[in-house]
This record gives sequence, structure tokens and C-alpha cells, in this order.
Amino acid sequence: MVEKDTGSGFDVIAIIGVGLIGGSLGLAAKQLDLAKRVIGIGRNEQRLARAKTLGAVDDFTLHASEGVANADLVVVCMPVSYIVPTIREISPFLKSGAIVTDVGSTKSEIVLGAESVISNSAHFIGGHPMAGSEASGVEAAKADLFKDAAYVITPTNNTNLKAMRCLIDFARNLGSRTIVMTPEEHDESVAIMSHAPHVLAAAALRIAHEAELARPGDVFSLAAGSFRDLTRVAGSPPILWRDICMSNRKAVTSTLKRFEDTLAAMRKVIEKGNPTEIEALFEEAGSIRESQMENKT
Amino acid sequence: MVEKDTGSGFDVIAIIGVGLIGGSLGLAAKQLDLAKRVIGIGRNEQRLARAKTLGAVDDFTLHASEGVANADLVVVCMPVSYIVPTIREISPFLKSGAIVTDVGSTKSEIVLGAESVISNSAHFIGGHPMAGSEASGVEAAKADLFKDAAYVITPTNNTNLKAMRCLIDFARNLGSRTIVMTPEEHDESVAIMSHAPHVLAAAALRIAHEAELARPGDVFSLAAGSFRDLTRVAGSPPILWRDICMSNRKAVTSTLKRFEDTLAAMRKVIEKGNPTEIEALFEEAGSIRESQMENKT
Repeated sequence: MVEKDTGSGFDVIAIIGVGLIGGSLGLAAKQLDLAKRVIGIGRNEQRLARAKTLGAVDDFTLHASEGVANADLVVVCMPVSYIVPTIREISPFLKSGAIVTDVGSTKSEIVLGAESVISNSAHFIGGHPMAGSEASGVEAAKADLFKDAAYVITPTNNTNLKAMRCLIDFARNLGSRTIVMTPEEHDESVAIMSHAPHVLAAAALRIAHEAELARPGDVFSLAAGSFRDLTRVAGSPPILWRDICMSNRKAVTSTLKRFEDTLAAMRKVIEKGNPTEIEALFEEAGSIRESQMENKT
Repeated sequence: MVEKDTGSGFDVIAIIGVGLIGGSLGLAAKQLDLAKRVIGIGRNEQRLARAKTLGAVDDFTLHASEGVANADLVVVCMPVSYIVPTIREISPFLKSGAIVTDVGSTKSEIVLGAESVISNSAHFIGGHPMAGSEASGVEAAKADLFKDAAYVITPTNNTNLKAMRCLIDFARNLGSRTIVMTPEEHDESVAIMSHAPHVLAAAALRIAHEAELARPGDVFSLAAGSFRDLTRVAGSPPILWRDICMSNRKAVTSTLKRFEDTLAAMRKVIEKGNPTEIEALFEEAGSIRESQMENKT
């Protein structure tokens, strides 16, 4: 990292992909004085100009090679499947000591790929700020998007520790809670806490739809709050979830297998019909939720 | 049904169990002029007095035999496992032509039981207003709880059609959408739209808890909106869900089996790793939700 005179910040941050996450990072970096300059990089000039108008970037370019040339920190805020190709593309143009990170929802595949394509003089560390909203695009960006959110940082044996500390400081300065784990641990956790629930939603909708076809008007009309809650995420973009499942296939499929086995075990308890054992299932769930889910809303 | 001079209403409605649902029914019946008198029946005198103060009942009694004696409509608003025993208890005291209904979340077992214990001169028809809230107790009752809600009415071959029409009118006067189906059809629909989702929530919490035990601090801290949505219902009372699962065991277990099979099929698609097929899973889910879930919130 270069010398800097802005707090614990960077001279220049380049953000590749200025949508909700990239735009919010830019706004936060500028408002919290985490960089002297923020450069936006993208493919759509209008959208980049909009980001500048909104104060998310100081300047922008369509040419990644130019945009990253002076950057001390490069944050790749693109969909999962674009991250490694983008890092490969910018790698020859990175300055010595530059830190490159991403914000992708999966980590093992990306970190492995990024480490294999990044230039020797730069440092890659995977990251995943657990922030977002149903909205998308730079118009929805806000400087406090990362405040109080979990920001997972996923080093490996190859990670430069000084660079990692800089990234941790950056995430903390955004107001995030930083959590350090391996890419594989991250992927198992998010498979449970996010990816498998999306597949459960798809399964619930398919089952209800099949029942509705057999008895039109008699199934969805009885949707309770639990079904609405369970299936809300099915409104997310299919392409996004295709890429997440492709990238995190191993953890997603092993988590789904755990769901199949756990549901089978619970089904057998219900089939057996011992009221005490059935009550215990729901007692257990309630007490785990009570103790583990800080924010119960 | 006796002669009446209040719209399409009843002279006397008796409500057994004056909590959220019973209290709301009382408030609605009185405010919408659906009965000349509403009698509350329960075991807790203070709670009944509170219901009277709130305007949910005109009068109350601890003695079900007295409370139902003059009732044209008796609505049993008790937990699932108490409904049939209560109907057995009041049966000798019902007036000729009285209509008895319940508001239980399961129907096959209750309707079968109720039909076998009700006196020959009275009429039982099962019902399930799909209304409720996280709150409970008569304090949370409100007259418009049933407005625009689905109200399922579950006749059988033994059902008196004139009595059923009276119950349908009553539910419509509450502002509900009435849906008529058999008890078995009801139970299959709610197993999919409500009961199985509660078991899914319990399964998700167990799986996350097991992972959290192996890696403390690294799992629940990454809970995304989808996991919060999926597990929200685990805050419901375990005893309630024990009784629902006991009463609707057949449909709940066959629905859970469908979830196991559907998840296995989706897992195999993800394992296979064809992006187009994976995208199709999420496309399908999004389009079912789009077309079937009127209120997408």
C-alpha cells in the first residue's frame, strides 16, 4: 500500500461495476473520507455518469486498464461469473502493491481463480459484504448500506497479511462487522443461510403449483404468512441464482442433501405420532431462533 | 335456523373461546349487526369480562351448557385438540336446528369427530378462517380481521345444505372470501401452504445450529433476508404446532415427502451443472410466484 494522508484510507479506489453495491461503496468511501479519489469503471457510460452525478464516484472510465492504473484498492462489484475474467483483464495494469477484492456471493471458486490470474506484484483477497436490498442499480445506492452488516473476508494461505489488514480496516471504516474465514467455510455458511433457502422457495412453489393444477383455486388461495415468507425470495433474478448455484455447487448440493435428510427425520417423528417428540421439534426450533437470531424481524 | 330480523344474521351467536379469533368474530358480529346477541363462553372469567368490556360479547358464562342453550350459531374458537371434546360436551344442550362450526387449522379429523358426536337435531360444518396475526388474546381482536381473508368451509356428504348456506352468508358478511372444499382437500392445501413451511423452518434452524456448533460465530452471523424470512414462523407456539401436526399427520407427512423428493430432484439438476437447466428452476419459481401470489409482499 502507498503512503496516504487520508485517515486509514487509500489515495485512489477503483470500483468496477457501479450498481447498488459498487455505488454504495463509492458513496461511503467519499462521505467517510476513505479515499482521495474514487474512480468508477463500467461498460455503460450513462450509468457511470449517473453515478458521478449522485456523488458515488469522482470520475469514471470505460477502460478498466486506465481506471485501475493508479488505484491502491480495486473493488470488483460485478456478478459472480464476471469476477475472475475481469481480474484477469485488469491484472497487467495494476500498480505494484495494489489490493484487489471482490464482493461476490460465493468465494471458493472466485478466490482460487483470482489468485491464479492476479499479477505477482498485486494482492487479491476475497470479500463478501452481506448487504443488499431488493432494489438494484446505483439509484438505490446509499452510503450506510454496509453499516452494521457482516463483511466476510476470506484469506487463504497465499494471502498477504498486511493487505488483509488494510481490507479489514476498510470494511470496519464502512461500519461493517468483519468476519474472517476461509473461502470454503464462507461458502458452506452462505449455502445454509442464503443459497439453499432460495432452492427451498423454488421447491415450495413447484409443489404448490402442482397441487393447484390438480385443484384450481384451492391451493394458493390459502397461502398463509409462512408460505409468503418462504417464497418471497423467488422474486430474485434467475440468472443471479443460476450463477451462484454454479459457483457454489458443492456446498449448495451438500446443504440440500442435509435438508432432505433432516426433513426425512422430522417426517418420521411426525409419522410416529408421539406428541412429546413432535412438540420437541418446534421447541428446539424456537429456542435456536430465540438464541441465535439477534434481529428477529 | 330460527326466524330473524337482523339482516342475514342470527338471533344469538355463542362463541366458545374468546381470544384473537373468537374476540374478532364477536366484534365483527356486533359491529356488522350479524346477531342480536353474542354470548362468550370460556374458562377464565377475567378474560371473558375483558372481552365484554372491549365490546366483543354482550354477555358471558363459564357454563357452556347454558351459553349454547339459545344459540342459533355456535362457533368453537379453541385450539385444535379441544374442538371435538368441546362439541361432545355441548351437544346435549344445543337447540334444535342450531349450527355449530369451528375455526380449527385442520379439518379432516375434527369434522369426522364432530359429526360423530353432535346431536341429530343440530348441524355441524367445519370452517377455517385464514386470518390471524402474531398477536394473540382478545386484546388483539379486531372487527376487520376477516375482511378479504379466505374463509374455508368444509362440508361432507352429511352436511345440511341450508345450514351450510347460512354459514357461507355469515363468512361473507364478515368480508371474507368463502372457499368450499372437502376436509381432506383443505388439509392437503394447508399442509403445503402453512404446515410444511413450519417444519422447513425447524429443519433450517437445526441445520444452521449444527453448523454453528462446528464453527461458532461463522454461520448465524451470515443470516441473509431469505433465512430470516424462512425461519420467522419458528416463533410460533410449539404446542399449537404439535397439535396441528398430530391432527394433520397424513397430509403433513405426505407433503414433507414431496419436499424431500423435489429438493432431491433440484439438487440433481444443480449437481449436473447445466446452467440453462439451473436457470430454469429459478425461472419457473419466479413465474409461478408472479402469476399465483396476488399479494407479493
